[in-house]
Amino acid sequence: MERNIARLRARLAPHGVTLRPHLKTAKSVEVALQVMESPQGPATVSTLKEAEFFADAGVRDIIYAVGIAPWKLAKVIELRRRGVDLAVVLDTVEQAQAVAKASRESGDAIPALIEIDCDGHRSGVLPGDAARLVEIGRALCDGGELRGVLTHAGGSYAARGMQALQQAAEEERLSVVDAATILRDAGLPCPVVSIGSTPTAHYALDLTGVTEVRAGVFVFFDLVMAGIGICNVDDIALSVMGTVIGHQRDKGWILIDAGWMAMSQDRGTAKQAVNQGYGVVCDLAGNPYPDLILADANQEHGIITLRPGADGQLPDLAIGDRVRVLPNHACATGAQHRTYHVVHGASDLVTGQWQRFGGW
Amino acid sequence: MERNIARLRARLAPHGVTLRPHLKTAKSVEVALQVMESPQGPATVSTLKEAEFFADAGVRDIIYAVGIAPWKLAKVIELRRRGVDLAVVLDTVEQAQAVAKASRESGDAIPALIEIDCDGHRSGVLPGDAARLVEIGRALCDGGELRGVLTHAGGSYAARGMQALQQAAEEERLSVVDAATILRDAGLPCPVVSIGSTPTAHYALDLTGVTEVRAGVFVFFDLVMAGIGICNVDDIALSVMGTVIGHQRDKGWILIDAGWMAMSQDRGTAKQAVNQGYGVVCDLAGNPYPDLILADANQEHGIITLRPGADGQLPDLAIGDRVRVLPNHACATGAQHRTYHVVHGASDLVTGQWQRFGGW
Repeated sequence: MERNIARLRARLAPHGVTLRPHLKTAKSVEVALQVMESPQGPATVSTLKEAEFFADAGVRDIIYAVGIAPWKLAKVIELRRRGVDLAVVLDTVEQAQAVAKASRESGDAIPALIEIDCDGHRSGVLPGDAARLVEIGRALCDGGELRGVLTHAGGSYAARGMQALQQAAEEERLSVVDAATILRDAGLPCPVVSIGSTPTAHYALDLTGVTEVRAGVFVFFDLVMAGIGICNVDDIALSVMGTVIGHQRDKGWILIDAGWMAMSQDRGTAKQAVNQGYGVVCDLAGNPYPDLILADANQEHGIITLRPGADGQLPDLAIGDRVRVLPNHACATGAQHRTYHVVHGASDLVTGQWQRFGGW
Repeated sequence: MERNIARLRARLAPHGVTLRPHLKTAKSVEVALQVMESPQGPATVSTLKEAEFFADAGVRDIIYAVGIAPWKLAKVIELRRRGVDLAVVLDTVEQAQAVAKASRESGDAIPALIEIDCDGHRSGVLPGDAARLVEIGRALCDGGELRGVLTHAGGSYAARGMQALQQAAEEERLSVVDAATILRDAGLPCPVVSIGSTPTAHYALDLTGVTEVRAGVFVFFDLVMAGIGICNVDDIALSVMGTVIGHQRDKGWILIDAGWMAMSQDRGTAKQAVNQGYGVVCDLAGNPYPDLILADANQEHGIITLRPGADGQLPDLAIGDRVRVLPNHACATGAQHRTYHVVHGASDLVTGQWQRFGGW
């Protein structure tokens, strides 16, 4: 984890942009303190529960990066009154009007960023839709604060190869830089130009015009990121410990007490070149057994087998032996647990426990 | 939920078998108290954390129905010393020897059931493997207590049609009745003959020789159960509330603030005749909008669309409007939440909050 954080910081430093880490991956104060530039932030969150939780822990500069629903503005105002510079995200005139109205009524100009749709995968205004951008910006400025523009290259998860990743990063950058230009040309402010996804953050060549980069899963990495080529399997800092509870020797199965409840049902590598099942099985030091995966999972049972087509043999794992399983998706697997057990390097000595929170 | 519980009780009553509900679906004391015959049980759990949690709540008759790992026996003994009749499950001689040894050392004969593999989907001894059954039974009786045999027809989830479900139920029954006969013929005790899965519990015609039935998801039901034909969509007692946060009108998308973090990534209906995406979208009263599903999901974004091929039109849902989403798999969706908000019938008045716990 420490190496992953240092790597992204070193990568972004020459570009002169701020790293605003997404805290939704770990949902842990201890991880947040390591990944943020300072204990006050900046940070990104995906729920108001996270905003509240990290505000309680002292974070003071937060973007809530999921489109705002008007009824949530009361909580936003409450957190802002506690001294948190909490900004919201929106992509419609209705939301901008609601933010402006709540700002006027509360006497607090709520900052908002306009979400840009850089790759068609989710929400946001198309970067060239000047009329809508300006209309949203003007509606917002009727009491609220237009803080800037923001996008997320979720489509980069499907990019394969360095060139495709560099292109996804450049498209992400251009989408917000173009939108910022439209707003500024219309006489509107646009101080913040925010991009972010773990793949593009690691592959962008040019960040001209960008003021900050958001990324989340880079802190732990996972098999999906390894499959895209953003990290090596050895960089994955999160694993689930399981115990062997049985064998079905005629089928080549080893059963462990970690199923989908422990791993999540994220099967993100199923669409990649190498399908890792529910995870890659390692020894206690974190070294993968050759071709050994968690091929199937019930709620509390995991079925370990050799990867289809592999011609090795099963390791000699007896009942009671423990293994580590590397996850497809760190955000999803983390969410199945309430505590991180901290280990250093290949040691299995637990040196700390970090609480993880959840909910909305 | 109340109707679902009454239905299974009424179904099992004429067969004279005990209902030992699986508490892993809800992981809630309030639900457990409604679903169990008495506040003391009997009950089934999938983790020792559940056993501990429900023991604290007063439950005194529990089967921990995932194969025991020897290092967990210390916790089993601790719970038994607190007055809980906690039984474990195993399918190997090694485990039986470990249970017998721990029983001798603690002076407490730990009860264990031998798991039978009725349909090849997970763990267990093949019902006809008399040598292994007797060997396990004898190893166990060297200090421990052979409580009986247990199986779970997980394969019934893939059965389609009444006849296939009845057949899965009969195969489940025969597997444990045959195994019990083998043990008794060898002079070993086998008082408990335990079967259980929600599909087979609702379709078994004959329960001769069975002493108890375990089932879990029947308490809430879900879209997978509706797809198999065990319940109607109207029986589903669990839903996730989401708020509309945007539209991509040219794509026919409505975006809500409930993604896979709220729904889980269980896509169990993808293999069924009707793929329900991440869930069926309903109004606040729980009435499904025609052909409206949560077609895709990011961590905190859900994308609502019409079902592929449907020729209706999107309902007029504005930003800020709320919807309910029925889940594919109640166990998985429940696990994403820490509180149940209790409502009665079609009302959206919350009359209570029930805590849900997690972890291991």
